[in-house]
Parts: sequence; C-alpha cells; structure tokens
Amino acid sequence: MKPVNHIKIKKEVSVNELVKQMDSAGVLGAGRLGKAANICEAMIKDRQCKVFLGLAGPLVPGGMREIIIGIIENRWVDVVVTTGATLTHDLGEALGYRHYQGSADADDSELHKKGFDRIYESYMPNKIYEGMEDFIDKNFKKLKEKKSIKEFLWEIGRLTPNKSILKACFENKIPVFCPAISDSGIGLMIWGQLAKGKQVETRAFEDLKEIIDIAWTAKKAGVIYFGGGVPKNYIQQAMQFAKSASYGVQITMDRPESGGSSGAELKEGISWGKMNPKAKFVDLICDATIAMPIIYAALKERL
Amino acid sequence: MKPVNHIKIKKEVSVNELVKQMDSAGVLGAGRLGKAANICEAMIKDRQCKVFLGLAGPLVPGGMREIIIGIIENRWVDVVVTTGATLTHDLGEALGYRHYQGSADADDSELHKKGFDRIYESYMPNKIYEGMEDFIDKNFKKLKEKKSIKEFLWEIGRLTPNKSILKACFENKIPVFCPAISDSGIGLMIWGQLAKGKQVETRAFEDLKEIIDIAWTAKKAGVIYFGGGVPKNYIQQAMQFAKSASYGVQITMDRPESGGSSGAELKEGISWGKMNPKAKFVDLICDATIAMPIIYAALKERL
Amino acid sequence: MKPVNHIKIKKEVSVNELVKQMDSAGVLGAGRLGKAANICEAMIKDRQCKVFLGLAGPLVPGGMREIIIGIIENRWVDVVVTTGATLTHDLGEALGYRHYQGSADADDSELHKKGFDRIYESYMPNKIYEGMEDFIDKNFKKLKEKKSIKEFLWEIGRLTPNKSILKACFENKIPVFCPAISDSGIGLMIWGQLAKGKQVETRAFEDLKEIIDIAWTAKKAGVIYFGGGVPKNYIQQAMQFAKSASYGVQITMDRPESGGSSGAELKEGISWGKMNPKAKFVDLICDATIAMPIIYAALKERL
Amino acid sequence: MKPVNHIKIKKEVSVNELVKQMDSAGVLGAGRLGKAANICEAMIKDRQCKVFLGLAGPLVPGGMREIIIGIIENRWVDVVVTTGATLTHDLGEALGYRHYQGSADADDSELHKKGFDRIYESYMPNKIYEGMEDFIDKNFKKLKEKKSIKEFLWEIGRLTPNKSILKACFENKIPVFCPAISDSGIGLMIWGQLAKGKQVETRAFEDLKEIIDIAWTAKKAGVIYFGGGVPKNYIQQAMQFAKSASYGVQITMDRPESGGSSGAELKEGISWGKMNPKAKFVDLICDATIAMPIIYAALKERL
Repeated sequence: MKPVNHIKIKKEVSVNELVKQMDSAGVLGAGRLGKAANICEAMIKDRQCKVFLGLAGPLVPGGMREIIIGIIENRWVDVVVTTGATLTHDLGEALGYRHYQGSADADDSELHKKGFDRIYESYMPNKIYEGMEDFIDKNFKKLKEKKSIKEFLWEIGRLTPNKSILKACFENKIPVFCPAISDSGIGLMIWGQLAKGKQVETRAFEDLKEIIDIAWTAKKAGVIYFGGGVPKNYIQQAMQFAKSASYGVQITMDRPESGGSSGAELKEGISWGKMNPKAKFVDLICDATIAMPIIYAALKERL
Repeated sequence: MKPVNHIKIKKEVSVNELVKQMDSAGVLGAGRLGKAANICEAMIKDRQCKVFLGLAGPLVPGGMREIIIGIIENRWVDVVVTTGATLTHDLGEALGYRHYQGSADADDSELHKKGFDRIYESYMPNKIYEGMEDFIDKNFKKLKEKKSIKEFLWEIGRLTPNKSILKACFENKIPVFCPAISDSGIGLMIWGQLAKGKQVETRAFEDLKEIIDIAWTAKKAGVIYFGGGVPKNYIQQAMQFAKSASYGVQITMDRPESGGSSGAELKEGISWGKMNPKAKFVDLICDATIAMPIIYAALKERL
Repeated sequence: MKPVNHIKIKKEVSVNELVKQMDSAGVLGAGRLGKAANICEAMIKDRQCKVFLGLAGPLVPGGMREIIIGIIENRWVDVVVTTGATLTHDLGEALGYRHYQGSADADDSELHKKGFDRIYESYMPNKIYEGMEDFIDKNFKKLKEKKSIKEFLWEIGRLTPNKSILKACFENKIPVFCPAISDSGIGLMIWGQLAKGKQVETRAFEDLKEIIDIAWTAKKAGVIYFGGGVPKNYIQQAMQFAKSASYGVQITMDRPESGGSSGAELKEGISWGKMNPKAKFVDLICDATIAMPIIYAALKERL
Repeated sequence: MKPVNHIKIKKEVSVNELVKQMDSAGVLGAGRLGKAANICEAMIKDRQCKVFLGLAGPLVPGGMREIIIGIIENRWVDVVVTTGATLTHDLGEALGYRHYQGSADADDSELHKKGFDRIYESYMPNKIYEGMEDFIDKNFKKLKEKKSIKEFLWEIGRLTPNKSILKACFENKIPVFCPAISDSGIGLMIWGQLAKGKQVETRAFEDLKEIIDIAWTAKKAGVIYFGGGVPKNYIQQAMQFAKSASYGVQITMDRPESGGSSGAELKEGISWGKMNPKAKFVDLICDATIAMPIIYAALKERL
C-alpha cells in the first residue's frame, strides 16, 4: 500500500508539478485529477489508440474555447462528439459575438428585456441569433445537401470565417459528431429554412456508420469525457464495437445514483463491454472549467 | 408570510393527503413536491394549455413504465420528448424482456460474462438486443421510409406487439420526439441495417417543424421534466416559439452550478423567453422514481 | 434475480401501499425508500435491538417537528443524537414562535432589516432569541449544574412549557445527545450568561460514558440517520463499542465522494467495525423532508 | 459587462498564472476559483482583518496536512476551527502513522480483518489508536485540567513530538476550536480515561467566550471555509458578534438545497447579520483537495 503523500507547495510551482504532487497524494479529487492527467497522457502517447473526446455543458461560455481548439489542433484526439449548444456557442463566437460574465442571481426578466440569455452565470447576447441566421441563410445551399451530421458540421467549419472548434475539426480532419444537433440554436436556424419550405438532406442515423467504423477498426480506444449527456453515451455505445476502451477519463459534476448515463461510473461500462476490465480509467467529480485547464496545462508540458 | 405547518400523519394516510400536507409545510423538498403536484394538476386541468413532458434517465429500468403509459393514456400530456435509451428499454419490455434488480456494487466483469448490462443498480439482459434486431429486421421496410423521427417512433409503436410507451403514444396520437434516437440501442439496430447497405430516410431536423408548430399554435404551454438532457432542452427551445411556458415542473438530481441545461433552474428560462415571468413553476431536486409515483398518485385522486 | 416490477397506482393509494410497491420495484430511489421502510420496521420490531436516531439539517424549519416528536413518543428509538440548531429551532417553537415559508431567492439584506434569518427557504424570526434569552435567564440556575450535555438537555425539556422534541425525550426517558451544543442559538444564550461572569458545569466529554455504555450493553443495535454531521458520526463511533450495527438506514443529500463522514456510505462502516457485514442496511440519497413523512406514514400503518 | 475571456495555456504555466486566467474567464468553477484566490489574498493582506479558517472533511487523509500547517505557520489566519476527525488524523500522523491510498470499491470486511479503517478511498491503520492511547495515557494529567477545549488542544499541540496542525497552532498562538471534540478518536481516548473513573475538567461552553471575544473586538473579519459542518457554523455564529464578515470564501461539495448550514450559500448569512451585504465573497462547489493546493500555491506567489 502506498502512503498518502502530503502536497508541499514551493513558490512559483508550475501546474504540471502540482498535478504530479496531486497524483502522489493519490486520493480524493486531487489524486483523481493527478490520475486523470496521467491517463490522458498515456492514451495520447499510445500510437495504437484512437482517442474519443466527449464534450457537454457550457464549455464555450465557460472560457474553455481556446483549450478545446488547442486539443484539436494538437491532434490529441481522433474523434469529437459534442452538443448542439456547444457548437452554437462556438459558431456565435466565430461570427464575432462574445459571452459575458454575469450572475446566477440575476433578474431574469431584466435580462430578457435587455436581450441576454442566461447560462447559469454567463450571458449570451440574443442578437447572436441574427448573425447565425445570416450565416445559415448565406450558406444554406451548401449545407442542405450534406447527408450526415458530420459532413454538415465540417461544412459549417469550412465556411466559418474565423478560428473555431468546427473549423479546427474540419482543417485537421477530425470527425465531429453531434447526434442531437436539431436540439440547438443551429437546429433552430435550420428550422427557419424548413419553415420557408426548404429541404435538408441530413439523415438522423447516417453518422453511426462512421463512428462505429472508427471504433471497429481501432486497435485500441480511449475515451475522455467532460460532462455527460449524449456525447458520452454516443461514444460509449461505439465502444461496444471497439475492442472496448483501454483508457478512460470522466470528469463531470453528475452523480451515479440517479442511474442516468451522464453520471454513471466508467466501471459500469465493463458490464456492457464498453470498458475493458483491465483499462486504466478514472472518474473525477469536478467542474470541467477547473479540471480542463489544469489537465491541458499538465499535458502541454508533458507532450 | 405563511408559517411552516408541521406534517401530522394519521394512520392509513393516502398519498394525496400526504402531498397536501407537504404543500402546507411549504418548504424544502416536501414543500416543493407539494407545489409540483399542484402545478401539474393546474396545467392538466387548464384546457387552453398544451402540456409538454420531458423524460430522461432510467425510468423504465426504474419501475416507472406503467406510470408513464398511464400519463399518456390519461391524455394528461400533449407532447412527449424522451431519450433513445428510454425507448430502447420500453421496446425491450414490449418484446417480453424484463429489467432486473441488481446492485451498484456488482462485479461488472462477472455481469459481462453472464450477459447483463448494468444501469446503476438495475440489469438489462444483453439478449434484449437479439429480440430488437429481429423486430427491426422484420419491420425495417416500414420504418426506413419515415421521414421524421416522430413518424419513425409512431411506426414502432404501431408495430409493437404489446403495451408500450410508444404504442400508447401512437394509439393516443401523442407526438413523441427523440432528437438523439441514433444514440441508443434502437439506433444501433438501425445501424445494423445501414451496415448491410440499406438506406433510412429519417431526417435529423425534420421534427422541428412539428414540435415548434405545436408550441407556436398553443394558447398556453406547460412543461414537466423528469430528468434533464436533450428532452428538457428540446422542449425548452420550443418554448421560445410558444408564448413562453405558463407552467413548469422540473424534477431532477442535476444541479445548476455546472451550468448545463439539465440542471438549470427553470427561472433561467425567463431570460430566454422560454418561461413566463408570471408562470407557476417549481424546481425539485429529487430522484424521479420517488417523485413520479407520488405525483401520479396525487393527480389520480385529484383529476 | 428478481425482475423490476413496475409501480401501478390505483386511486386513493395509501402511502404504505405505495412504499410496498416501491420496494417491489426494487431499484434506485424508489427501491431504496421501500427498503429503508422495511429496515426501520425490522429494527423497531426487534426487541433486542437498541435504535439510535441521528438527526441533522433543518428538520424543524422543514415541517418535521410533529413527526420527530411522534417517533420519540412511540418509543421507536432508544437514543437521539442531534444538532444544536435543531434543538434551538425546537425550543423556539416550544416558546411559541413559528418558522415561515420563504424563498431561496429572497433579498437577504431586506430580510435582515425585517428581522428574519433565512434557512434556505424558511425564515426564523430573529425575536426568537429574546424568548430564548428569557427562558435561559429564568432557568439558568437549574441548567448550570448539569454535568453532562444530556442532563442539560433533559432539563431544558423538563422546563419547556409546551410539547417539544426535548420534552418528549425527557418525558419518555430517551437519552438525547448533542456534542456540539455550544454551536447553536442555545449555546449563544449560555454564552450570554458566561459573559456576565457566570459559570456552567457542563463537561465536553462527559456524555461519552452514557452513549458508549448504551452501545456496549445493547444486544443488537440499529442506526437511522436523517442527515449526516456530528449526529451521524457520534453514533457511528459508539457503534464500534456495540457489537457493530445490525441494521442501518441513512437518508441524506450528502455524497460519498468528498470523503467526509456525512456522505460516507454505510458499508464504509464495515471496515471500522461500526456496521456488521451481515447487517441489513441501505443508503438513500433523498431530501429528509420527503423521505421522513413517507417512512413514518408507512411505519405507522405497520407497527 | 465583462466578456468571458478564454483561457490560453502557454507551456510551463505557473499555478498562479492559471488562477489569474481563471479569474479573467470569470464564470463557473474557474471564475469562482479565481475569485476565491483574490478574496483570500485581500483578507490576508488587510491588516485590520481577523481571518477565521474553518476546516471539515478528510483533509489530512486527503494529503492537505502540509498545506494546512503552512497556512498556520505563515500566520495567514487568526483562528482555526476544525473537526475532531481532522485533529485525530493529524495527531496520528504526528505520532508517526500514515494514511494510505486505497479504493472506494474496497472489500470492507477484508479491510476490517487487516485492521484498516476506510475513509472513502484512503485508509487509516487501526493501530493508530494504540499510539494515541499511549499518548493520552502519558499526558492525561496535563490535559484533564484544561477548562476550555482550546486550551486542551493547545496542550496536545505542545506535547506532540513532531510537527502537526495543533503544534503549529500552539507555537504560533493561533486559537484552535473544536466544539465537537468528543465526537472523534481523541474523544474516545478521553472516554478511555473516564471509563477508568478519571475526571476531565474541560467545559462544553467555555470556548464561546474566546471566539466571540475575538470576533467582537475585530475591526474587520474574514471567513474561509473548506467544508461545512460545525467548523463553518461555529464561525458563522461568531460573525453575528463581529461587525459581520467583510470577506468570505466557501469551498465545499455540499449544496444549498437540503437547507443545512454546511451547504448554505454565504449570502444567506446576510439575513442573519453574519455576512456584510457589501462583503466580497464567493461560494465554490469543488473538492477541497483540488481547490486548497491551487489557492495556496497562488497565495504563496502573491503574498
């Protein structure tokens, strides 16, 4: 048995040095954060391993956009699965809008009058929708023919004027999936076209072929989840077609006891054949906006 | 100011009587449960109000299937939005399979060998997939032509041999939406067909027309959420096209502080124009398998 | 393996009937609530078993006062351990004050001006302190000589003019412990006396003799926790001196992952010798103001 | 309104630089962690401000012991309030024992046989009690006469052979309070003496005089809470006698909705006169073993 080593902080400690000490402490949030960084490092370094990244929650309004783009541009991951909300927030910023620092105790009626949509304690300006409507309007012809959601999203990435998560995916040829894309601002913009009587070819089940094929042909697979929801579950179900995941990192504030997929511990996946019983994996209950920059900083020093 | 009335229990108290006393206590979980029952009652009784029900989490493996079917057959709700998992669990049971009482501390490797997939502390027999594969195989021709997910799901309901959530929706003409249907066992069965080179017409964005139209034309709207995820968010975004919701009940174990849609307090929706500032609404942090039967029992006595 | 039985609600179902159906569903919150009622029933019926009740959290401002008094008057438990806050709220109500239904979104500055202290969404009138000061002032001579906290609390119960938790404990000779009594409004009232130069004999460690003696001499022991904190831990440490607990029910919103005693799963106690490996026990993550009346109602019908 | 600035990570970023970027992002966990560091810095730098530190939860088994000792030796705080468990873990380590890295999924019966007590995923060797018994036995004469718990704890600190939290408090003359000291391993060791018929003079209410006096005479006050429980509440009630706290930082995994003091938001204290309406304060929901080293490292660079 290894003793718990107490963390000792010298002046001007780097994030990576701290994370290593957390790993040496070995227990609770600190220990799990240390282990999460190690497992991310191991799966990224493992040349045989395809890394699947699931992203849910308000990561863009939470200040994580540059880090996510960095992960993709570094090609640390091979597949991205995310929510329509994240892609909407990302597109909004790519079109020149910002999110704002707000308060969870705000007067929501007042915000509504002023045209700000609250996302816990960040605000999204409502006029973001105008910019997106213009963007979709202008590019609808190219988008409407895309048969899979991934192709649809890559096309948005290609057309996006500035740096963005989708542009980074497109340029680096990282497949990006978003099964519930219709459940988002982008979805609403497409509805705006449908309401005018236009047609969109994008199929609901089409992407399954690609993600399952990537899983199926991967020699090894690793999963990294920030948040749960559809992104996690969609990767998890693909893992049944991989030789089950060899590495896993789950970081979320969701808990297992409600029984939903979002908070389910990774070990539950062993029963399903999604997670290898010998896999290196860790569950960390932590706000993604705290854990993501710390792990990213540690990895940047290590890789 | 109303005083907190202490709950007094006489022998053989009915659930409805207890819920009324909880409402009279007025605070914390008890008070909110009491209020939730009242608001559900009010929105169902309000003839002008279209009621949107969002269902997420393991409600079928959690023993809620008969209650959900009851809600639909009683026509208490006008729209159902749910997850692919719930519809998969439901179809499995309609095909004669059961879920089993298990343990959250189970040996997952052992379960895997025995062919049981763990959902926290309930188990799904893996052979459920064989039955579903047969079902989809046999009925694929009828399913593959459905252009919207709702039509696809109603068709499953129509074809289902026994009582089920989807059959109840179909028979009672309750529209049922599931934007992330590809993220589920049903999705995997359809992938099985795609992998054989077959085609499915179902479109990713098509359903938006119908749900937004229902919201748009409703004189008033009410929302009831058990769990968060895509079902909640998909209804919430439709509420922007209603005259905003006049009633709201949210029951989940998710918390607001991670900033995701699942745990966001209903009042946040006011800033978006999803919730009316004058709406009657309540957030209750409670396991759905506790709150749902209690509210259902109270409503059954009241309605 | 037992299948999950779906709960079926007939009209005017009693709470006890519903709880039995929850037990038959067998999983998640519903299953655990059903099991909790069964285990409480079993330990209360077991004549050889001493039942230790731990109470933490705002149970009195939450409307649970009559139920707690009922538990004591029914002599379902042999020992009560609670917080200074609960005893302060209880004494306040015994002296004629009430708690009020409020809002978690209240303007706290405004409440402060109006003399209301907020406890999440219930309010305590600040003038409660005047009544308590008078009470302590008048009775200080009798209180100051009590060497143990239990004797000090029984004396308050004896002196209390109306029905109260402490009065019920005193009259039924149920030992009541509160190790952190100084951390409460009652503590502050005693400080008011100390500040005038008076002395109080009550010893910090004295009660350990009595609670450990009860545990030591018990043939069997059972524990019921609503909330965690000192009450739970104080009972748990006594269990090391019992033959370890044979029954256990823990109901709290606290989670295990922060590693504190409050949210620790009961099974953790097995490693300490606090819980018998063969004990019947269940952990339920649920608001106490929901679970307590339900279990009480079920027990009232069964016992 | 300030925009959310996206965190950009350059190589070998120091913890302090990261925390500043988190503050600039401004929202969710990251923003709150940034703000927590700022507020800690401000209250420590404010010469007129007395800083009260509340510590609950398994901080010593979680690897935080050196940091806590550092906080005290740096004299960043003026008062420490903690739990008996923390002081027991601290004394154990001072007597040469260690805590060990374990697993939350351990076989607790097996651990019991091997003599390890589980604290979520760290293990405490049971033989720690032998060492403590010897220590208390040897020093009982000096301890038994201490009239206040603070004097009792300082005496333990004085007598402790090696570096410890209590020794640091004693040597730096930092008052340390622990109202529920009887609820701990140290309490049990004292019970061992009482069981032999010995007497201990330590009074239950005595310490209130000193902590309230410190609060009362402070020109300004600041509070820092890692975890909730009695330590938080005991400081909060003292704040009613200060001119209310001017600074506040609360870091815990407990939530407000159960209504208990542990998870209550700091703003609730405004209604009580515990927190100044103009105070700088922040609530952060985060594992203490993650947040504490980060804030400590940031402060070490800044102070």
